[in-house]
Amino acid sequence: MDGLTMNYQLTLLALMRRAETLFGHKEIVSYTPSGERFSYTYGEMIRRAKKLAIALRSLGVQPGERVAVLAWNHYRPLEAFFGIPACGAVLHTLNLRLHPSDLAYIVDHASDSVLLVDSALLRLLEQFRDRVNLRNVIVFSDDGAVPDGMLDYEALLARHDERDYAEPAIDEWQAAALCYTSGTTGRPKGVLYAHRALALQCLAWTMADTFGIREAEVMLPLAPMFHINAWEMPYTATLVGAKQVLVRPQLDFPTLLCLLERERVTFTAGITTIWLGLLDYLERNPEAYQLTHLRAIAIGGAAAPRSMIRGYAERYGVEILTSWGMTETAPMATISTLPGDLAHLPREEQYDWRTRPGYAVPFVELRTRDADGALVAWDGQTMGELEVRGPWVASGYYNSPESADRVTEDGWLRTGDIVTIDERGWIDLKDRSKDLVKSGGEWISSVALENALMDHPAILEAAVIAIPHPSWLERPLAVVVLREGYTVSEEQLLAHLAPRFAKWWLPDAIEFVEQIPHTPTGKFLKRALRDQFRDYTWPTTQRVERAT
Amino acid sequence: MDGLTMNYQLTLLALMRRAETLFGHKEIVSYTPSGERFSYTYGEMIRRAKKLAIALRSLGVQPGERVAVLAWNHYRPLEAFFGIPACGAVLHTLNLRLHPSDLAYIVDHASDSVLLVDSALLRLLEQFRDRVNLRNVIVFSDDGAVPDGMLDYEALLARHDERDYAEPAIDEWQAAALCYTSGTTGRPKGVLYAHRALALQCLAWTMADTFGIREAEVMLPLAPMFHINAWEMPYTATLVGAKQVLVRPQLDFPTLLCLLERERVTFTAGITTIWLGLLDYLERNPEAYQLTHLRAIAIGGAAAPRSMIRGYAERYGVEILTSWGMTETAPMATISTLPGDLAHLPREEQYDWRTRPGYAVPFVELRTRDADGALVAWDGQTMGELEVRGPWVASGYYNSPESADRVTEDGWLRTGDIVTIDERGWIDLKDRSKDLVKSGGEWISSVALENALMDHPAILEAAVIAIPHPSWLERPLAVVVLREGYTVSEEQLLAHLAPRFAKWWLPDAIEFVEQIPHTPTGKFLKRALRDQFRDYTWPTTQRVERAT
Repeated sequence: MDGLTMNYQLTLLALMRRAETLFGHKEIVSYTPSGERFSYTYGEMIRRAKKLAIALRSLGVQPGERVAVLAWNHYRPLEAFFGIPACGAVLHTLNLRLHPSDLAYIVDHASDSVLLVDSALLRLLEQFRDRVNLRNVIVFSDDGAVPDGMLDYEALLARHDERDYAEPAIDEWQAAALCYTSGTTGRPKGVLYAHRALALQCLAWTMADTFGIREAEVMLPLAPMFHINAWEMPYTATLVGAKQVLVRPQLDFPTLLCLLERERVTFTAGITTIWLGLLDYLERNPEAYQLTHLRAIAIGGAAAPRSMIRGYAERYGVEILTSWGMTETAPMATISTLPGDLAHLPREEQYDWRTRPGYAVPFVELRTRDADGALVAWDGQTMGELEVRGPWVASGYYNSPESADRVTEDGWLRTGDIVTIDERGWIDLKDRSKDLVKSGGEWISSVALENALMDHPAILEAAVIAIPHPSWLERPLAVVVLREGYTVSEEQLLAHLAPRFAKWWLPDAIEFVEQIPHTPTGKFLKRALRDQFRDYTWPTTQRVERAT
Repeated sequence: MDGLTMNYQLTLLALMRRAETLFGHKEIVSYTPSGERFSYTYGEMIRRAKKLAIALRSLGVQPGERVAVLAWNHYRPLEAFFGIPACGAVLHTLNLRLHPSDLAYIVDHASDSVLLVDSALLRLLEQFRDRVNLRNVIVFSDDGAVPDGMLDYEALLARHDERDYAEPAIDEWQAAALCYTSGTTGRPKGVLYAHRALALQCLAWTMADTFGIREAEVMLPLAPMFHINAWEMPYTATLVGAKQVLVRPQLDFPTLLCLLERERVTFTAGITTIWLGLLDYLERNPEAYQLTHLRAIAIGGAAAPRSMIRGYAERYGVEILTSWGMTETAPMATISTLPGDLAHLPREEQYDWRTRPGYAVPFVELRTRDADGALVAWDGQTMGELEVRGPWVASGYYNSPESADRVTEDGWLRTGDIVTIDERGWIDLKDRSKDLVKSGGEWISSVALENALMDHPAILEAAVIAIPHPSWLERPLAVVVLREGYTVSEEQLLAHLAPRFAKWWLPDAIEFVEQIPHTPTGKFLKRALRDQFRDYTWPTTQRVERAT
């Protein structure tokens, strides 16, 4: 109908125009691995992104073509975050912690034609380059020295003038970025983000009831830029004009604490294990550090133990914002912001709520189904597999007909996460469907046991896996790492768990280990643990027998 | 490409599903004109909206058909806000303050087929019904007594069961609502809002840097539901699950103050003149009232005088949020939230910034052009006509080929507002293009003079209009209303203005009147003022002669 709302496309180009016109003066800070500080403005960043877009086009990159980035977090990949989509191509960030064989598989599967790489990662590239078909390799180098046959990023930009950049016509449904799931089982699978999905995910981060990101924010993403594009934080920062600080994610704690203070960081985000470790470090070094400006830490990858939420809140005035998401949800899908009526509860009860990932953010919808495919009631008790739909949720996997079963007939994505949903719509993560312990026809949540164990002061990390059992099909085994300087017995830990669970949920044994293997994104690598304990023999079956 | 973001449509249906699943228990309060309180839940509201959708379909309403609502603010029109779009039709709210001839024109122009009407407004309907072609009239009645040939809303709903409601397939680009601009000149013109525009406008209201609307909010819209759908506040409240309080907008101040306290209202919004009046009332009745829960008032329709912003902030702890928008921008397009670096300024300087409408909210883009059509620099000095584009901006007017010139060739909407834009992108409203005073080839902003006059303690309202002048083409005449109990002379007012403006900007005369006529939406009706002073004779031309 004439007079209708105008056809305005929600694309990353709109973010670039906004940063250019409104936030040209605002600061972007980038640290080198050796700790050198580099600072420039959004204006300069966008000008360089435009040069990159022109350069890629001059190299023959076509609309929709995949351009890979193999890099740590710094300002040059940030330019690629915009420059690649700005020429109509698809930004494909590569997880540099993967095995070269996996990288070869992913680059080949995505048909990446051009790759941008940190000079420090050229040795990694060498290990798989002969297995993939790259037309051009562009090197992020500080000294301009690049191997024969490769292009120097700075020299390439220097050849172009950003005023020659002409915006291509980009539809919001066009793909802007491609990320592969790190996949603890099976082959990595690709998720394609439409421009629209990224634009809307950014908007969702700015809501007062989610992360409330504002212009006045200083954001330091501790998620790698190759992990869901640092959870899209560089895009959110650009949308609102927030200062952003890019650092190599695995800093040692003193350096991280120093940076948080120096750059007056107000908001940071990363996987739970980092923040558990940081809190532990702070407690072992009282008085040495402050968190003056920091207001909030968004966590992901695993649930937050209550002791961690309490520790940050009461000792440092920092709010832990729990959320649930995955590569397929770009990533934020839920948030644990307390509704008004719960915000008046006693603090300890509030912490209980905040350990959970909360409820769906606007336009995301959730439901659960049981093993028979029936929809599960929102009773806070019955477990089911979580299904999700929404404007930034994947419709499936890139070029992966074999994973068609991950989407329901009516278009919801099956997440593989086992959850309960309560009357308010709050979910509680019980497990990955493959990590559930199926004991005598009942489900035991390994995650619930792990969180309870990690709430014990002596326990640094805990993972629970299913071990085959002659009478019960499977029974839980807990594998724990002690906190430095602490000791605790198996019996003491079981006594700690006993009041919280049905007797038949309690692990049949607790093994003390030096460390638990992690995935490249910091989650427990249960596949490796299961391998390690494949031939495990139960010390006794008495406990189960007694309990049932 | 396969694996791309799923095709999830941003529609009002998504808001309904969200309210139903997450906020079914949350409260909606509605007051009758006689002050009776009615309260129910979002769950009940959505169930009744579904019944209405079924009922409209049973009356033969087709997708895209316009269904009109002629009502004050209460819970039944709220149900229509959802029920009409939920059957695929277009919600058309009618401004009950318009002349019956204008209403006849609008209903006829929109081809409304069904009309929902307050029983108290049946007499207004009678005055134009024979001039329009309505298939059905449905009456919001408390006692079920409706005139012959009309339908009782409650009886109609009672005939249906919400479980029979089947969601139609609605594309986000489909029209959800239609509003006519109140138009101080020319015929009213219709603006069609796509579902997507309303969904995104709601999201924009929830951003921490705009109005920051949250689940814990209690919203009381003092904009009428027939004025840009109460600025879309009922939709925003539904998206986040905020309690909403619906009242007839023109309450007396004691009743309004009582309601704000009783319902623990945290956020309200309406035209500037209401809040000016309320502050004046509070000052004349110190100690009598509190604003305990209220955190913010969003204003629109006119700039906020600094004295008002200071008064609410310092005496009541209430933040005035200035913004710019219009029917064509659904409505929010700018916000005056201070960027981080200005938030450290002394308070008085912050108030200066906050009198202005601020900068574009995410995805809205602004630019200005001068009389020759050239783009104007963002220097904070040069005036130009504001043009706007964005995901909730109109592409033109419904069925109005004669207003094609309101859209530029490259698709921006010409707003008719004369503004400056500074280096930060902050706009300053100088005038409506038709209200500018063109003095000797230069532009004088009537709005700037009005705001400066209204900053004087003795002045309640001030309007400045252009009067033909023999030597200067036009010169400004100020028309002012004194605050009760105050006196001030013309010379004193000119002395108050002198330090703030170039000499040739000062009004040539100031007329003291009892009242200034307002438009139905509370703006100064300058057309009427110009009529009133059509034969005005300048007392002297000396001042201009001296000044130039």
